[in-house]
Amino acid sequence: MDLNSDVGESFGSWPMGDDRAMFTHVTSANVACGFHAGDPTGIARTCRDAVDASVTIGAHVGYRDLAGFGRRFLDCSETELADDVVYQLGALQGLARRAGGDVRYVKPHGALYNAIVTHEAHARALVDAIRSVDPSLPLVLLPGSVAATIAEGAGLRVVGEAFADRAYTPEGYLVPRGTAGAVLHDADLVAQRMTRFARDGVLTAIDGAEVRVEAETICLHSDTPGAVAIAAAVRGALTEAGVSLRSFA
Amino acid sequence: MDLNSDVGESFGSWPMGDDRAMFTHVTSANVACGFHAGDPTGIARTCRDAVDASVTIGAHVGYRDLAGFGRRFLDCSETELADDVVYQLGALQGLARRAGGDVRYVKPHGALYNAIVTHEAHARALVDAIRSVDPSLPLVLLPGSVAATIAEGAGLRVVGEAFADRAYTPEGYLVPRGTAGAVLHDADLVAQRMTRFARDGVLTAIDGAEVRVEAETICLHSDTPGAVAIAAAVRGALTEAGVSLRSFA
Amino acid sequence: MDLNSDVGESFGSWPMGDDRAMFTHVTSANVACGFHAGDPTGIARTCRDAVDASVTIGAHVGYRDLAGFGRRFLDCSETELADDVVYQLGALQGLARRAGGDVRYVKPHGALYNAIVTHEAHARALVDAIRSVDPSLPLVLLPGSVAATIAEGAGLRVVGEAFADRAYTPEGYLVPRGTAGAVLHDADLVAQRMTRFARDGVLTAIDGAEVRVEAETICLHSDTPGAVAIAAAVRGALTEAGVSLRSFA
Amino acid sequence: MDLNSDVGESFGSWPMGDDRAMFTHVTSANVACGFHAGDPTGIARTCRDAVDASVTIGAHVGYRDLAGFGRRFLDCSETELADDVVYQLGALQGLARRAGGDVRYVKPHGALYNAIVTHEAHARALVDAIRSVDPSLPLVLLPGSVAATIAEGAGLRVVGEAFADRAYTPEGYLVPRGTAGAVLHDADLVAQRMTRFARDGVLTAIDGAEVRVEAETICLHSDTPGAVAIAAAVRGALTEAGVSLRSFA
Repeated sequence: MDLNSDVGESFGSWPMGDDRAMFTHVTSANVACGFHAGDPTGIARTCRDAVDASVTIGAHVGYRDLAGFGRRFLDCSETELADDVVYQLGALQGLARRAGGDVRYVKPHGALYNAIVTHEAHARALVDAIRSVDPSLPLVLLPGSVAATIAEGAGLRVVGEAFADRAYTPEGYLVPRGTAGAVLHDADLVAQRMTRFARDGVLTAIDGAEVRVEAETICLHSDTPGAVAIAAAVRGALTEAGVSLRSFA
Repeated sequence: MDLNSDVGESFGSWPMGDDRAMFTHVTSANVACGFHAGDPTGIARTCRDAVDASVTIGAHVGYRDLAGFGRRFLDCSETELADDVVYQLGALQGLARRAGGDVRYVKPHGALYNAIVTHEAHARALVDAIRSVDPSLPLVLLPGSVAATIAEGAGLRVVGEAFADRAYTPEGYLVPRGTAGAVLHDADLVAQRMTRFARDGVLTAIDGAEVRVEAETICLHSDTPGAVAIAAAVRGALTEAGVSLRSFA
Repeated sequence: MDLNSDVGESFGSWPMGDDRAMFTHVTSANVACGFHAGDPTGIARTCRDAVDASVTIGAHVGYRDLAGFGRRFLDCSETELADDVVYQLGALQGLARRAGGDVRYVKPHGALYNAIVTHEAHARALVDAIRSVDPSLPLVLLPGSVAATIAEGAGLRVVGEAFADRAYTPEGYLVPRGTAGAVLHDADLVAQRMTRFARDGVLTAIDGAEVRVEAETICLHSDTPGAVAIAAAVRGALTEAGVSLRSFA
Repeated sequence: MDLNSDVGESFGSWPMGDDRAMFTHVTSANVACGFHAGDPTGIARTCRDAVDASVTIGAHVGYRDLAGFGRRFLDCSETELADDVVYQLGALQGLARRAGGDVRYVKPHGALYNAIVTHEAHARALVDAIRSVDPSLPLVLLPGSVAATIAEGAGLRVVGEAFADRAYTPEGYLVPRGTAGAVLHDADLVAQRMTRFARDGVLTAIDGAEVRVEAETICLHSDTPGAVAIAAAVRGALTEAGVSLRSFA
């Protein structure tokens, strides 16, 4: 099993998250590429820290919207999005290689991640961009998204993702934020759920049913209060349960 | 001899220059990388056009200042500038490779070009960035700049540059803009000067003296009225004089 | 009748349109406010030129998207949009007053203009912003948009707008761009249509039917080839027909 | 005596400082205007909080450099800087008035604050901008800066500023950051120094000498560890010593 987290999200004088602390727990680092977050010097520092901690670097690409942190849908054209993604991938490759690492996978960020569950043109743009940069890069996605179908059709490896601190519906979807109980805050409970999931591929849904989720990586949020504590608890529980932790890439 | 020109300087809905027309005359394309000019889709288009026209692609890196077009000195730190340059180089590599080309050299833009004639920290940052991305990339500079000394000391190839439409002092420096006669507008005169220069390495200075300039490439401006006409005249005159035109890279 | 046009859309080193030429023909200037286009020095120059030409200044507010020129829908929150609009209005007031003028109306730009035909939250944000800055500012809108209903309910004066170079459906809507015949390029035909419209409030729809459009101002595009020629033709024809031209504000 | 602090410096998803906590201690709020920090919604929130706490709002204007937080000198032209400042002032006026307050003074930020100690063109630009927006706005400056002379010559009121947590030379200048002892971290010591200063106008310099500083306001940093504790200590000590605290504006 792989544990991934969003990092490199500082910008200029504004810090965000504690990347080094997360790197003691995760195996994959979704590094911001400058369009929704991340300035070159902060990205460079995160890449060096990831290399030092033997954490795999992935490109966390997003819409061009610094003021909205990439969390607002932006109705750009398919061409614009593809070129924006290539630009971000290339920029991160430059900084990651300078740090002695490289970009090993791609994960879309925020509104882009959500959009391509259904938005075909944006899904195609992302897939097209990855193929032109390096078709061997796996793409981390929500299982069942339209982007997964398009990516697999284009020959990309798709890596399904589960969310450690989110409740699931009996159908295997995320309970929408805003619904009571959608986000889990109890580190022990989260750790226990993820241990079960890592071993059996099964999660307990919000109504008590059991639901099977196809995922090779677990997302640990980095920017919530208690993020590091939850990451430590999940890492500890998985290790104790004998689950081997390593990057999917 | 090589002929270079600044291209890819459109941004979003704002066009600048006529890249395709310039590509019928030059051998090297200084492509903007998004920090002083150039959006990913415009850069991508310019790279495709350069590849189609068999023009060599170089990275035109600059300060992070879109509003000022990179023409204003920005007192960033050495680390910030190095990381900004790596980011720009990587981004352009991504887009150039997608277009079937690659980045073959680096030329600093605007205020950065001028600063590193004397600014050691910014010169070191630029050289450091290039070395970490690809130490085989030549660096186009004003002959005699402090950056040339630092670059050569670091093992980079330095390519000196002459300016087709600028007057020179008897000491071989550019006559500062704003001085009467600093900028030449007569396409025939410019073509005649460059033919002499390409053959003998000699220019007539503003006072009539002859001055030797060490340069392997001639910069043809792309954003002035008559730019394409001057480029055509220089290209034509050099070809007629039997000067072989091809990229230095 | 009022004639309005988008101006102040240059950014830094990138010019756009010929504001001074348009000012010899229009009575109202939709001045960009820096979020989709316009830098402070360019805006300042446009305001001075508008004041010199006795053209009324309006605020052309848009989404925060310079790379997309405000032509891409951005799914920002109602609060974010309201504050973004207040910021833009205040900034333009500062520059307009420095130039000896003032902001006399508001017109949303691009994707925002289109969104609020149906998007209630963004329509409310715009109306809320205007009310808090100056509830006496009229709001220029597409007739029949949901924003018109909300604005009138909030006590704002709404000014309907017709488009000189666009074809209309028999129901009085714009024929979508991309449809054959959607955009008119013949200056004489446009001038003739607008003369009829200014006198009788009637346009010939794309199917030949007559359609009544409620509008107090006619938009003349400034960034298309032939823009100045069309503006001159419309101005000339209206003047010749005895239509009095002056700002609605 | 007045106590001022920098606020409104969050940007999008990146928080900075604890504005509400500072508002329980200071009398004047230097609110970021969006060019070096501050997005419209964050600025709006800060203005509402300032109004609620009866803290006077000032415009903290800076260079257009979000990535550098306005701490890097930017060699813009006098015209560009003046227009940039007018834009920022107008934008903040819009948001402050919407919050029920108004802009009552101007303080330059970061590299601009430091530049105009000696840079005449940038000092003139700042003074020119303020005069065109509202010549009754006082300008907070380092005593002895060239900007003070230019501002007073132009009829602006200049308000001198002392720094609570900085050591002074015997000549009354700030000991440069980086020098041992340049920044004071002991809240009690700082409170004691400021009490003496508020009563007698005298500070103990780094060599033990007494130095007279002409200042009507004391700057309390908001973005350093312990910032709120130092602010509370200074406020408490001044109040206990019977010093009346209120805005200079």
